[in-house]
Amino acid sequence: MTEQLDSNGRLRHLLTLEGLPRPVLLRLLDRAQALREHAFDGTALRATLAGKAVCNLFFEPSTRTRSSFRLAATRLGADTLDFDASTSSTKKGESAADTLRTLEAMGVHGFVVRHPDDGAVAALARVAGDGTALVNAGDGRHAHPTQGLLDMLTLRQARGDDFAAMKVLIVGDVRHSRVARSDLHALRILGAGDIRVCGPQSLLPDDGTLSGCTVSGDFDAALEGVDAVMMLRLQRERMAQGLVSSLEDYHRDYGLTEARLRRAAPDAVVMHPGPMNRGVEIDAAVADGPQSLVLRQVGNGVAVRMAVLEALLAR
Amino acid sequence: MTEQLDSNGRLRHLLTLEGLPRPVLLRLLDRAQALREHAFDGTALRATLAGKAVCNLFFEPSTRTRSSFRLAATRLGADTLDFDASTSSTKKGESAADTLRTLEAMGVHGFVVRHPDDGAVAALARVAGDGTALVNAGDGRHAHPTQGLLDMLTLRQARGDDFAAMKVLIVGDVRHSRVARSDLHALRILGAGDIRVCGPQSLLPDDGTLSGCTVSGDFDAALEGVDAVMMLRLQRERMAQGLVSSLEDYHRDYGLTEARLRRAAPDAVVMHPGPMNRGVEIDAAVADGPQSLVLRQVGNGVAVRMAVLEALLAR
Amino acid sequence: MTEQLDSNGRLRHLLTLEGLPRPVLLRLLDRAQALREHAFDGTALRATLAGKAVCNLFFEPSTRTRSSFRLAATRLGADTLDFDASTSSTKKGESAADTLRTLEAMGVHGFVVRHPDDGAVAALARVAGDGTALVNAGDGRHAHPTQGLLDMLTLRQARGDDFAAMKVLIVGDVRHSRVARSDLHALRILGAGDIRVCGPQSLLPDDGTLSGCTVSGDFDAALEGVDAVMMLRLQRERMAQGLVSSLEDYHRDYGLTEARLRRAAPDAVVMHPGPMNRGVEIDAAVADGPQSLVLRQVGNGVAVRMAVLEALLAR
Repeated sequence: MTEQLDSNGRLRHLLTLEGLPRPVLLRLLDRAQALREHAFDGTALRATLAGKAVCNLFFEPSTRTRSSFRLAATRLGADTLDFDASTSSTKKGESAADTLRTLEAMGVHGFVVRHPDDGAVAALARVAGDGTALVNAGDGRHAHPTQGLLDMLTLRQARGDDFAAMKVLIVGDVRHSRVARSDLHALRILGAGDIRVCGPQSLLPDDGTLSGCTVSGDFDAALEGVDAVMMLRLQRERMAQGLVSSLEDYHRDYGLTEARLRRAAPDAVVMHPGPMNRGVEIDAAVADGPQSLVLRQVGNGVAVRMAVLEALLAR
Repeated sequence: MTEQLDSNGRLRHLLTLEGLPRPVLLRLLDRAQALREHAFDGTALRATLAGKAVCNLFFEPSTRTRSSFRLAATRLGADTLDFDASTSSTKKGESAADTLRTLEAMGVHGFVVRHPDDGAVAALARVAGDGTALVNAGDGRHAHPTQGLLDMLTLRQARGDDFAAMKVLIVGDVRHSRVARSDLHALRILGAGDIRVCGPQSLLPDDGTLSGCTVSGDFDAALEGVDAVMMLRLQRERMAQGLVSSLEDYHRDYGLTEARLRRAAPDAVVMHPGPMNRGVEIDAAVADGPQSLVLRQVGNGVAVRMAVLEALLAR
Repeated sequence: MTEQLDSNGRLRHLLTLEGLPRPVLLRLLDRAQALREHAFDGTALRATLAGKAVCNLFFEPSTRTRSSFRLAATRLGADTLDFDASTSSTKKGESAADTLRTLEAMGVHGFVVRHPDDGAVAALARVAGDGTALVNAGDGRHAHPTQGLLDMLTLRQARGDDFAAMKVLIVGDVRHSRVARSDLHALRILGAGDIRVCGPQSLLPDDGTLSGCTVSGDFDAALEGVDAVMMLRLQRERMAQGLVSSLEDYHRDYGLTEARLRRAAPDAVVMHPGPMNRGVEIDAAVADGPQSLVLRQVGNGVAVRMAVLEALLAR
């Protein structure tokens, strides 16, 4: 997918990590790392996007992701606007494209878009005007590229640059997870040497998503010697859908406990995109334990979003 | 209605365009035109309302209008506050007047007010303190003066200053439309030479609203030679009320199609306050066609609101 | 409760007024008084919290209190974030502690927290990181310390510094009122000489809340000669709970009318935390009369919140 790059190879939108050139991805990570150090307090960076407006255009609610993007935009000096499209004129039958064009006409040129449908953000990008940049903040089960970036930044901080030597395990509901898809894209671009995926058959994708991964239903076996365990959130609706028999069963087979974690490398790190279901996919002792990077992921998320907004809008 | 002017003839509130002196109206349009050119990016105007607070006080939801006013206030440097009165203490039985006085006591002196009842904003203005200014962002079917202003600005940009020579047609649910009322007030003040109104009998007002207009139920005839067609949104609830038999019938009789538009002057412009029901009152080919000014209206809306807030609050 | 002070006796959080050292309380009042004079317009104080983020973390809705804190933070130059925890990931089962830690990881270090449960804000403060400050914006029936402070500021402005000579009457649903508890704490710290409490037996607390107060069910008698009447809001749900027989009965026995107010000192002042039920606990003639300080309370609220945020975060 090259439509997110302009003819000079510069990032115009961030829609997916799939097919993103490695140097573009690394540049974002490097910039986010630099911002991470000193960008959350103070006003040094306020000139970056001063006078520009960034709109959180959410067709699906998410206070957490919206807050992260909002803080990122604010710290770069942008004006921010929350447009909750689930309670607005879109309810009156207005199309997402009309909403986008309306906001563009008001002088908004940065959009952070979340949408329940796969590919909806890329579709919006195709109708956007020349000076407009979109960031996909999650579309259906398709992609959540800033989550993928922040996960890579976190991995790199903890385990260094040598992705080829890294053993990474992704666990849980990969089938419905845009987080997993974006992580897999990023890990491949960075050349991760050993990518493992583990979960119940009913929650694993049956398309090409997992090509090149070692897939297993046996969590204990999959954990052996890994450097990083990336847990996914289990949506409780999977039970109603009959994809999971019970939370207890799920925890028994795919919950990360302290005992289980000992199968991983001694200094293995644990990640989770949040919000966590403690006691379901992850035990509190692990979530809050010394190997957990969950809160560092959150902080890195703001830095990554600042790097992305800067790359797209600071022109 | 002179209560919106102070004893020196200066605008104190903007409640309606009815009876607004022509020079006051023209001054707002001229200033909006100047702002339109270069005011949406950058921070040149941030000192205008720096340190002042502008509150969107909405007793009826409208993300679109609220966003437009919010961007206008932000670009003038004001602090903005959204007070959604449909989910707040007004629900606990507090009166609109108490809500206004409470916010005034907090140091808010600019209010953008939307209310479902005719005249509610003027009633609030009567209890407001001396230093407080209100902008009517739509009250019932009564008035939506900034929409009237932005429509005039758009017309003037497209068709020039000679309103006396202009043939303008307003189409649709004029009976329930505050947009139409404000447009009619403005067109009369500017001396529009030929104002036509067209719609089904059930959706036309039977009071003095249309005095001086050429009224017709025949859309094709009414379109002959007009310079501008101002379409109104059809609320779907009109069907439930029995005022419209079906959307198909409405489209057949009052939907603006490309074929129909050919009856107007060759360079006629098409306007719509949005959000549009494509395929009902307007076809997509017209809405997105070369004669459509719909998005320019949206942009002009921000400029007009900046001009109004500046006139009321930059003292 | 000393956990809100650090080892140097400086305020780290503001959780309750109970046990707050008198000099700390007086310093906040003095600073709020200074801010009151000239802090609501202009941008003189914007450097105070520039680059810092303050989050309104509300587990219970309150547009009014949220707006007051938001204006206070904005006028000190802070970035503000509204996190409505009743419509967010906390609904997905995330704990309040995880929500707090997540926002901290995003670089938010000031939190204004409202919660329906007694003690919930103090519990959150115990899991907060070192650089984080919490302000209790109301927890259950436990405490609402900024309301207590603003009431004291208002009392002092109107009746001077000599609290020992002051006769103060609190009227209404003290049992369920965090406002009354915080007022009582503050009045004791300031050494109020005569604290009276009045209300129906069913709405008075049966714990130690009222120790040292003169308690009565007879409003007329309790009013005799008081310098200040602090009315409480009657929640309409008290009727459904059977604690109040009817609004009419309540008004007859505990509604503040002009006639009743004549029993108080001639220059007695009337206060109410808002929103008011006019015609229930207070008549409109009193609420809007010359002895009412209701709107001055609202203005003082912003000043007090500025003083508190400055004390906690401007380091």
